[in-house]
Amino acid sequence: MNVTLHGRTRHFRTVTFDRRRNAVLLIEQRLLPHEFKIVAAKDFRETAAAIHDMIVRGAGAIGATAAYGLAQGALAFRGSDLKKFSRHVDTVYHTLKDARPTAVDPVNAMNDVRAAMQRGKTVDEKQSLALAAAEEFAGDDVRHCEEIGRHGARLIRNGMKVLTHCNAGWLAFVDIGTATAPMYAAQAQGKQFHVFCDETRPRCQGGTLTAWELAQQKVSHQIIADNAAGHLMQRGEIDLVIVGSDRTLGRTGEVTNKIGTYTKAVLAARHKIPFYVAIPLSTIDWNLKRGFDIPIEERSESEVCGAWGVVQSPESKVQGPGSGKRVYIRTANPASHARNPGFDVTPPELITGIITPAGIFKPKELWKNRHRMGFNG
Amino acid sequence: MNVTLHGRTRHFRTVTFDRRRNAVLLIEQRLLPHEFKIVAAKDFRETAAAIHDMIVRGAGAIGATAAYGLAQGALAFRGSDLKKFSRHVDTVYHTLKDARPTAVDPVNAMNDVRAAMQRGKTVDEKQSLALAAAEEFAGDDVRHCEEIGRHGARLIRNGMKVLTHCNAGWLAFVDIGTATAPMYAAQAQGKQFHVFCDETRPRCQGGTLTAWELAQQKVSHQIIADNAAGHLMQRGEIDLVIVGSDRTLGRTGEVTNKIGTYTKAVLAARHKIPFYVAIPLSTIDWNLKRGFDIPIEERSESEVCGAWGVVQSPESKVQGPGSGKRVYIRTANPASHARNPGFDVTPPELITGIITPAGIFKPKELWKNRHRMGFNG
Repeated sequence: MNVTLHGRTRHFRTVTFDRRRNAVLLIEQRLLPHEFKIVAAKDFRETAAAIHDMIVRGAGAIGATAAYGLAQGALAFRGSDLKKFSRHVDTVYHTLKDARPTAVDPVNAMNDVRAAMQRGKTVDEKQSLALAAAEEFAGDDVRHCEEIGRHGARLIRNGMKVLTHCNAGWLAFVDIGTATAPMYAAQAQGKQFHVFCDETRPRCQGGTLTAWELAQQKVSHQIIADNAAGHLMQRGEIDLVIVGSDRTLGRTGEVTNKIGTYTKAVLAARHKIPFYVAIPLSTIDWNLKRGFDIPIEERSESEVCGAWGVVQSPESKVQGPGSGKRVYIRTANPASHARNPGFDVTPPELITGIITPAGIFKPKELWKNRHRMGFNG
Repeated sequence: MNVTLHGRTRHFRTVTFDRRRNAVLLIEQRLLPHEFKIVAAKDFRETAAAIHDMIVRGAGAIGATAAYGLAQGALAFRGSDLKKFSRHVDTVYHTLKDARPTAVDPVNAMNDVRAAMQRGKTVDEKQSLALAAAEEFAGDDVRHCEEIGRHGARLIRNGMKVLTHCNAGWLAFVDIGTATAPMYAAQAQGKQFHVFCDETRPRCQGGTLTAWELAQQKVSHQIIADNAAGHLMQRGEIDLVIVGSDRTLGRTGEVTNKIGTYTKAVLAARHKIPFYVAIPLSTIDWNLKRGFDIPIEERSESEVCGAWGVVQSPESKVQGPGSGKRVYIRTANPASHARNPGFDVTPPELITGIITPAGIFKPKELWKNRHRMGFNG
């Protein structure tokens, strides 16, 4: 999407490949929203480190990064010995896989690239096929988000106020994003609307990443404390909720997403506000039978007990990017401990619809439409 | 309540009066939880400034501070001219009232003190009566909280997990607090239980003040992000919710409290978890007919866009009090704006009971019990 730097607006993807330098180019997301910087991972080990260190995060974005990383590793091989090449590619694959061991997207993406490489007979051919497959994976990620936008844009009508939670934006994918895709598509259609971004404690991805995205795209928006959405709904100030999902159960329609999503769904149901979840097909889990069985990651206490940001005066004018170093502060009582579940599960009865690249479905109807979504089980 | 400093445990009240120095002694709450310090307001103007600058906050605490401040101002008068004394007391009264113009507690507290002064015939007598009335006001505040604790303690059973929001603890009153009173009373009865403190963004009074209080009192507790309570309820990890209130409508049972309270009440109702509100009688508004008419304060954007705390490494060991200077950091996207409603209104159907010094009532039954609560309308 667009980023304006020093008065010039340019289009960026979250992850791209520089063939000349054999480098994976990434937006350094840990610096956002205070600084915008593209970093180059110059070999597959640097690419794996970028995934591990969360320079890049988000399902689609780490999938494409791993796909490019595998091609990058393959392209770095010198020689024509197919056995040696195969062993080298295995090393690359496992290095990238181990960078984020619980994530499923890098594995799926790299399996696509490996399957494409099978069709080549020489090292040269396999190298070319690897890069082509990685580019195709990234291109598909963008097209799927475009489709989500096309289906979802009609949910946004002129004058609406839309709530979103966390960041399921283009920074989490190669471009466009999922929860944000209907917003960007509606904007392109000339619709006027306003977005409330939940701050999304403890990691604040809503107040940092989503707000940054919307500001760059000039979408009207305001950040709210996670506590405020209920009040705004009560006063009729929210018309629609759109969130993303890390894992949606195809059999039950249950949605796993960033902690706090369930709360917003409960509030939306009480106020009869439509609650939509926008997802790429890759995040649908067609096997698991119960949302209760999804393991909920307990994250570090330090996230709840503190925050990251740039020191400034609370009265100071809004500052530009790059104007300060991010620090961690302890906000909480020094002697207290915290619980920090990272995700929650929203049951299907609270969800109005699931926006996928293949169309919008009731959560309970995912299973019977599974063939349209490419699942052959 | 108890505070442990350098290994010694002492009992403190939030506000006390030092007759010898004619000073109001206050816990400097802006430094908590990182530093514990008692400050002396040496004349009524310093006392007014302490209320204005939020060295002291919370309904009962600012009521008692204003009562002491009025006595302090009266005691500082030299001479026996009753007319001059009366003009001086008027100045003191208005200076203290203007320190927090929307708060009702300082006005009610000072009216008690002024009424008591009427009974004196000389300046000397009026001065003594003023101080006695201020001490009585503070003592009543403590007794009312003790009564709330006595009624509420039976709601807490062994092994329970209790959620609270924001700080309705002893720091908001002269001692004991309201939402915390049942916890402290249950602890005194030897019951074992665990408290989850909502962080309570944007000002984080749960993660700072309530967590500090509970840690000092050695009550088992953990801080959670405001987003996490729904998930914990879903997994059966919360048995009871107790919150405070800034203003409860006696005619309707609607409860105004810190933003996010309504959300917790909606979640509790969905999970059939008892939801109680603990209040002193002074915060019952017997006149207003609709919660919708309660003006909701829109506070500064900087609260939502940032946080206050002490710079440290996220991996560092828990630090002691007094180990760093509090700074403000901007967490949010620099170019984005925020909405910041400070309070919300919870309807009576979501509230299991209202714990008052006069007993526990269904919210809809406050009105018919109004005479038991001292309202003669």
